Amino acid sequence: MSTTQTTPRIKGILSPVLTPFHADGSPDPDRFIRHCRWLIDQDVGLAVFGTNSEANSLSVAEKRDMLERLLDAGIPAARLMPGTGACALPDAVELTRHAVRAGCAGVLMLPPFYYKGVSDEGLFRAFAQVIDAVADDRLRIYLYHIPPVSGVPITLTLIERLLKAFPGIIAGTKDSSGDWAHTSATLERFQPQGFDVFAGSENYLLATMRGGGAGCITATGNVNPGAIVRLYHSWQNADADAQQKKLDEQRAAFAKFPMIPAMKSAIALKTGRMDWVHVRPPLVELSDEQRALLGQALDQTGFVMPNAHQLA
Amino acid sequence: MSTTQTTPRIKGILSPVLTPFHADGSPDPDRFIRHCRWLIDQDVGLAVFGTNSEANSLSVAEKRDMLERLLDAGIPAARLMPGTGACALPDAVELTRHAVRAGCAGVLMLPPFYYKGVSDEGLFRAFAQVIDAVADDRLRIYLYHIPPVSGVPITLTLIERLLKAFPGIIAGTKDSSGDWAHTSATLERFQPQGFDVFAGSENYLLATMRGGGAGCITATGNVNPGAIVRLYHSWQNADADAQQKKLDEQRAAFAKFPMIPAMKSAIALKTGRMDWVHVRPPLVELSDEQRALLGQALDQTGFVMPNAHQLA
Repeated sequence: MSTTQTTPRIKGILSPVLTPFHADGSPDPDRFIRHCRWLIDQDVGLAVFGTNSEANSLSVAEKRDMLERLLDAGIPAARLMPGTGACALPDAVELTRHAVRAGCAGVLMLPPFYYKGVSDEGLFRAFAQVIDAVADDRLRIYLYHIPPVSGVPITLTLIERLLKAFPGIIAGTKDSSGDWAHTSATLERFQPQGFDVFAGSENYLLATMRGGGAGCITATGNVNPGAIVRLYHSWQNADADAQQKKLDEQRAAFAKFPMIPAMKSAIALKTGRMDWVHVRPPLVELSDEQRALLGQALDQTGFVMPNAHQLA
Repeated sequence: MSTTQTTPRIKGILSPVLTPFHADGSPDPDRFIRHCRWLIDQDVGLAVFGTNSEANSLSVAEKRDMLERLLDAGIPAARLMPGTGACALPDAVELTRHAVRAGCAGVLMLPPFYYKGVSDEGLFRAFAQVIDAVADDRLRIYLYHIPPVSGVPITLTLIERLLKAFPGIIAGTKDSSGDWAHTSATLERFQPQGFDVFAGSENYLLATMRGGGAGCITATGNVNPGAIVRLYHSWQNADADAQQKKLDEQRAAFAKFPMIPAMKSAIALKTGRMDWVHVRPPLVELSDEQRALLGQALDQTGFVMPNAHQLA
């Protein structure tokens, strides 16, 4: 397909953008837009509606509305990779079609994740039906492999079959398995074919870049973008391992707590906007005590959020 | 609440009604209505939109439409317990409100099931927010405990807290854990308070009835209702253990294959309507060879579907 050659692929550091909520649980588009602008300024791409965005806690209508608002606010579609996977294929088709028609760089697609132990044949059909229904050469699908949460792995065999059936459309993967052997095998086998492998956290950023990968899509990109982007651009420098070590320490400060509430609390702490703490059930915000401990832990790692006032 | 005393609770045998699809993957309301009528005739209640209904493979709009069509066709709301749980609370609220306003006997509610390892506090808030948003005293919630699929258990501690906060509204559970120790503990602790425990499969029907439970909600109710209903009504008879043994054998014939495609194939075999075989991805229909083997296995157990022509 000619589009494969002509359209540059999105690469680098992306973040599953946190979704800000009001106290009543409704999404806050104004803070969402400001957060996206801030991330773009930090050279971070926008994997809106990912796991850390609480995307599966949002209805299809809420996700469509929030994407429209970003585009209306001038956020460039070329920097967007919305999550569009869903248990129900009609939902995945609707969200994917909406993202493609809006000109988004790609979509990050979970497999249908309710049934466990399903076959590669069934998963192949799920992706194939979305692709056939959307029927748009501009579609770029990044396969979202996150078995610790979804419970439904995307095997190397499935990737191979999808790549063969839909060259150009199947564009890459986010590997959030936490299993370096799997990421490494994916890199070796498919990256040379132009299948872009993104690490699922910055813990594997340096290893992924050394393996020829495309970057990483990471939760903590929401709060610590500068240091992560710096390593992406300088991974061949002599201090790369030292940079990676520092990134790991900063991530560990968040990982002492449930990640999504911790990141939202960090933004609340750094901006003074306490409404950033809200999450939707089944998640629960950090307690005041946890938030104070998080603040101390972050200070100890020298963590800063540049221009945090832009988020307030 | 006065309604607790005045409205009789749904009990006995219910089935998560299989959802028939056309070859193009769209739901077939006509076969759905005929199947529901046939189940009602067999004294089986309708837990439409359960796991075995491929409910999470349907959009919210498709589920609303299918429920409307059942009601328009004269299926009694008092025999309906639709599944209304969802990852996104707005979806759970919409489906639950729709079911309650239609007069359904109850709703079978999955917890939000994307995030794993969530707290009881988070799950409590999820159920509480649906209850508060629906704000209808007629609501009867059956908590759907199916950790092998959902990955999100409903603990005894959570049941206790919900029962205390929402007496009358929290009406019971379907226990599909496959863990008799858990079912038994639930029966002992909560059935005396009027919290109705339904076994999640007929394998545990006799044990559940002996433990004071309310019945069972079982996949194979779709295809083998007569024998299951008979045991429900005669569990105190001398032949109850023999009946249970026979039920177990018949279920085992299905369980050699993926359950949902196997049940759909059984209906196709018994009715000659081969469009009954269709499933939505990520499920896959049985192969011709598997279907033939299933037919043989069922014949060996003396399996019959009475008045199967009503489904054709």
